[in-house]
Amino acid sequence: MIFFRSDYSQGAHPKVMEALVKTNLEHTDGYGMDPHCENAAQMIRSLIGIRDCGVHMMVGGTPCNVTLIAAALRPYESVVAARSGHAYSHETGAVEGTGHRIITMEAMNGKLTPDLVDRAWEEYEDEHTPLPRLVYVSQPTEIGSIYSKEEMTALYEKSAERNMFLYVDGARIGSALTSEENDLSLQELARLCDAFYIGGTKNGALFGEALVILNKAIDDHFRFMIKRQCGLLAKGRLIGVQFEALLDGGMDSIYFKMAAHANRMAKKLKDGLAALGVGFFGTSQTNQVFPILPRDVIKELEKDFSFYEWGAEKEGKTVIRLVTGWGTKEPEITAFLDKLKIILQGT
Amino acid sequence: MIFFRSDYSQGAHPKVMEALVKTNLEHTDGYGMDPHCENAAQMIRSLIGIRDCGVHMMVGGTPCNVTLIAAALRPYESVVAARSGHAYSHETGAVEGTGHRIITMEAMNGKLTPDLVDRAWEEYEDEHTPLPRLVYVSQPTEIGSIYSKEEMTALYEKSAERNMFLYVDGARIGSALTSEENDLSLQELARLCDAFYIGGTKNGALFGEALVILNKAIDDHFRFMIKRQCGLLAKGRLIGVQFEALLDGGMDSIYFKMAAHANRMAKKLKDGLAALGVGFFGTSQTNQVFPILPRDVIKELEKDFSFYEWGAEKEGKTVIRLVTGWGTKEPEITAFLDKLKIILQGT
Amino acid sequence: MIFFRSDYSQGAHPKVMEALVKTNLEHTDGYGMDPHCENAAQMIRSLIGIRDCGVHMMVGGTPCNVTLIAAALRPYESVVAARSGHAYSHETGAVEGTGHRIITMEAMNGKLTPDLVDRAWEEYEDEHTPLPRLVYVSQPTEIGSIYSKEEMTALYEKSAERNMFLYVDGARIGSALTSEENDLSLQELARLCDAFYIGGTKNGALFGEALVILNKAIDDHFRFMIKRQCGLLAKGRLIGVQFEALLDGGMDSIYFKMAAHANRMAKKLKDGLAALGVGFFGTSQTNQVFPILPRDVIKELEKDFSFYEWGAEKEGKTVIRLVTGWGTKEPEITAFLDKLKIILQGT
Amino acid sequence: MIFFRSDYSQGAHPKVMEALVKTNLEHTDGYGMDPHCENAAQMIRSLIGIRDCGVHMMVGGTPCNVTLIAAALRPYESVVAARSGHAYSHETGAVEGTGHRIITMEAMNGKLTPDLVDRAWEEYEDEHTPLPRLVYVSQPTEIGSIYSKEEMTALYEKSAERNMFLYVDGARIGSALTSEENDLSLQELARLCDAFYIGGTKNGALFGEALVILNKAIDDHFRFMIKRQCGLLAKGRLIGVQFEALLDGGMDSIYFKMAAHANRMAKKLKDGLAALGVGFFGTSQTNQVFPILPRDVIKELEKDFSFYEWGAEKEGKTVIRLVTGWGTKEPEITAFLDKLKIILQGT
Repeated sequence: MIFFRSDYSQGAHPKVMEALVKTNLEHTDGYGMDPHCENAAQMIRSLIGIRDCGVHMMVGGTPCNVTLIAAALRPYESVVAARSGHAYSHETGAVEGTGHRIITMEAMNGKLTPDLVDRAWEEYEDEHTPLPRLVYVSQPTEIGSIYSKEEMTALYEKSAERNMFLYVDGARIGSALTSEENDLSLQELARLCDAFYIGGTKNGALFGEALVILNKAIDDHFRFMIKRQCGLLAKGRLIGVQFEALLDGGMDSIYFKMAAHANRMAKKLKDGLAALGVGFFGTSQTNQVFPILPRDVIKELEKDFSFYEWGAEKEGKTVIRLVTGWGTKEPEITAFLDKLKIILQGT
Repeated sequence: MIFFRSDYSQGAHPKVMEALVKTNLEHTDGYGMDPHCENAAQMIRSLIGIRDCGVHMMVGGTPCNVTLIAAALRPYESVVAARSGHAYSHETGAVEGTGHRIITMEAMNGKLTPDLVDRAWEEYEDEHTPLPRLVYVSQPTEIGSIYSKEEMTALYEKSAERNMFLYVDGARIGSALTSEENDLSLQELARLCDAFYIGGTKNGALFGEALVILNKAIDDHFRFMIKRQCGLLAKGRLIGVQFEALLDGGMDSIYFKMAAHANRMAKKLKDGLAALGVGFFGTSQTNQVFPILPRDVIKELEKDFSFYEWGAEKEGKTVIRLVTGWGTKEPEITAFLDKLKIILQGT
Repeated sequence: MIFFRSDYSQGAHPKVMEALVKTNLEHTDGYGMDPHCENAAQMIRSLIGIRDCGVHMMVGGTPCNVTLIAAALRPYESVVAARSGHAYSHETGAVEGTGHRIITMEAMNGKLTPDLVDRAWEEYEDEHTPLPRLVYVSQPTEIGSIYSKEEMTALYEKSAERNMFLYVDGARIGSALTSEENDLSLQELARLCDAFYIGGTKNGALFGEALVILNKAIDDHFRFMIKRQCGLLAKGRLIGVQFEALLDGGMDSIYFKMAAHANRMAKKLKDGLAALGVGFFGTSQTNQVFPILPRDVIKELEKDFSFYEWGAEKEGKTVIRLVTGWGTKEPEITAFLDKLKIILQGT
Repeated sequence: MIFFRSDYSQGAHPKVMEALVKTNLEHTDGYGMDPHCENAAQMIRSLIGIRDCGVHMMVGGTPCNVTLIAAALRPYESVVAARSGHAYSHETGAVEGTGHRIITMEAMNGKLTPDLVDRAWEEYEDEHTPLPRLVYVSQPTEIGSIYSKEEMTALYEKSAERNMFLYVDGARIGSALTSEENDLSLQELARLCDAFYIGGTKNGALFGEALVILNKAIDDHFRFMIKRQCGLLAKGRLIGVQFEALLDGGMDSIYFKMAAHANRMAKKLKDGLAALGVGFFGTSQTNQVFPILPRDVIKELEKDFSFYEWGAEKEGKTVIRLVTGWGTKEPEITAFLDKLKIILQGT
């Protein structure tokens, strides 16, 4: 069975494992109050060129999203997001679990726009409606597209105009930053939002994300929020150690190399699919590809390959999601395309 | 100033006030554990022809919606509703405040359909998505339309098929039941849902709604839920006394007479507006009318009449909401139409 | 049956009913945005001699406590209260329902002290413990005792020292202010806390409390909080109209006369009980009396009088709570004492 | 610096690291739906001799406590716990964050008793008070004592009598099971509660706890609860792999050997301290020791050793907490005792 199911089906990059083994018997304080977490935080501050910000080592992406949002909002305030966004579409209502509405907008290609933010505000009247206060986007989006520098700038300006925070879910931020089509650097992104995170889980860590909070108001007492939301890891240093290994070398680190590799593999897959005449859902620019295939073709493919179906069947066809990762090998791509070719020829 | 702003701009029907004055010096137990609440509950059980159900005297409509939903759902479960529905559009995220998502559907004429319920389920996958568990509708809808017997039956069957509760917000249920176009009786409605409420606030009470819970699972420990949600009124009997007065005489009671009167006034208003060539938003069948008027006409009308603007201006025109009530007098309708006529002639 | 069960077993003072009847057919805006609420708020501002504060007409005491606390605290912050305090002992965990801990302290005679506040802080360590942020007291306490000016001043200073808000639940504030033993005026109280409320329900209103928020930070967007917590009454003016009637005449108004009457009746009851050799729980200084009586004596009394048992039986005796109100009549007191005398003589 | 600060200051037992490295490049499904998690669950089912139960691989102890409690309770229900219990004393109000009160009892030696459960019920009246529904204990307790078989049986019977769930926090369960003074086996414990967890974090795992839910009602849709509470780890297999390594060999596995070693080290430390005439807080029977020492002695010790102070200073003395772990070495104990001896002689 070859996995295109997710970018978290394997463990960590060998260098990450090495670092964990090497530091394993050290004694340190718990809960992220250790030299590794502090060092990883400083590496990230250097990377983005901003010294004065909070950096918190978090266990996963949903804890990042939910804790950040719960910290940023007062009880009557709400989030504006694309309906396809992860915080709405794949977190079991965890944001609402903290008492906040997500105002969902149907977003072309998964991307929120200033116009959609304005339209979300049309629902606002007065004390009878929640107050929109935070814009949630992910870079790349849930369906693999990326915000250009111009688009992100426009969103940030709109957020500021509306007195809203802009928060960027960076579960696959490496993939966005290394996309051939990307024109928005990490340093720029960090200046165009109030908070974002650098995802480890989906790019070569065992687990862990580095949440960067630029806005002081949100960062206030944030460690209390993490604990209260059950997200403070006892051996917090594990995340720090991993980010030290991932980001060693800065923009030349394995973090960005792995992401670039996954993108290349996805590109190869996408080009191969297109060459076979397959159509796509959305226009992924990163490490996810969403071909639309007939049911019986999917059935055949599932014998050798593991992947998700994405949404309901329509007129006999279904979108599937193929994800590449740092560990994806070129022959796996070839095997998939070859098999598909044979199936399509047979039908 | 003539009020078409709401059906709760005045106090209570004089008979309601009489009942409150008459019983004022009685001593009773508090929190709804008194003979008046019990009697009103029995009157309602008789009216719907169902003995075995919970009837709770609630302070207002939002407390009904929120407490009922919070009682019915486990933490990971969610509500399906029309995006225009009151629980989503005018309750400041109070439902989400109890930790539950409202999955919103764009609904034609404010009405949810079995097909829309199915489409809401398309968002559901597994433990990564909240489980849809309760269908929220109001009868009439937020924009004055009503569900026919056939439509409500179809929704109830779909809810049952999906293992969902069907809950009917009856803030203006009197208006629905006495609409000329209505074919769904109160007895029938009570058999086509798991819970509903008979609204007092918007039909001649000072305040208060009678929440009827047909489904035992939801009714379990419901008084604990009311108190925990801050909704248990110390002098709970006040609501019981009012419903005794409102429903005295059953289907011939002032409750239904007031609602029928309001509907008649709305009909007169609607016909008059149509005669002046005015277009409408939606097709209200009850005591709310939603004409679409040019901005400057609205400005003129606002000098003598009080009403809400409903949604944002589009192409120079805005929807306004005109609401009639038990206290609306025919000359007030005439005055409005006359004034509008003059304005329109002047433009 | 004679009621000593609560001070809310009857309806409203006749002057309150008159005011409601008199204003019944007026049309006004809803949700407390009407001239009566505004006028009542101004009357209260005059009474306390502070112009610049929020005054919100609330439906009941639990909504006051819960909404105020939810507005004042961030998610990881907590309340310090006497374990006997109403917000802990009789609100079904509604405060915790908004996500906040109440740190309970065993309080002598129901009263929190600066020392108890300090002891609550002993539980605090760092991000692993909630941050104490609001001191909750009621004046009078749940068991009828009152804070002296010195005691309240000390609590307020301790709160300020600890960077905590001080909130005073005033469900029976009239009773405290008119107690013979009271030395803390309303004007003084308003300067010794961040928020308090003037209770209507337990002193001659049908329902309603006037919540006064002195601290701007808590008052910010407070109407959103009220609605989100389901507490915004459609015909909000009802509360305004009642407070206009209750407070007409300021310190000479029926509000204070009713409270003083109830205190006198309680005093008479207490003295009579003491004369019969009955012991008491706590030292109530207001309109509640807590005699300790043998089980069989209580059984006999319950045939003619309605009251609560207060806590569990211990060594054959139980505390009962006798509450007097504005409507309590002297012969009712006499009847109770006479009956008790006969029972005691018979045993 | 020698660490007696916690049993989670180091990484994992080398065999755990080996297993993680060995399985690192496998591809598996995410979120705990993989062969390792399933195998670890089966190993645990064998160990307790109960086939029919839910076993969930959780990231940490607070997520176990909070998710279990939130799944078990309806909104108006509450927890009874010792005030010193971890869920109250060290989780930043996370339980209350899900809307539930913890009714705290002052417990001798950290242990809840049937009598204390009964006393917690004295606070219960009716719908005005939350309904106690779950008893929370930890084995061993927060201060290192353990429940005997007789004590746990009595608590379980009391819980059943009161229609309450009994939940056992097993963060250090290995330490309890291998205590010389323990007479309660794992198999017995699993039959004396509704849910418990086997803690990994504090006994040789990098992180992770195995939550065992015996009661079907609580286990229903539990994976939805985990995700909604932000606790579902993408590479969930990491926890499964660790428990496979920890429990390989059953009662002879490294899990129990590590715990027994830590207990022996603690015993040695305790005996040494006692020999020096030092007194203790509580009577720890496991891997935590709570000596009471003068402030200046503590100051001296802190130069070479890392540990927590436990509670506030009283009369010049403070309780400190010394924790041993699987990695504690005998010379570290000797070093501590030698240093203390020197300090004490010098004073």
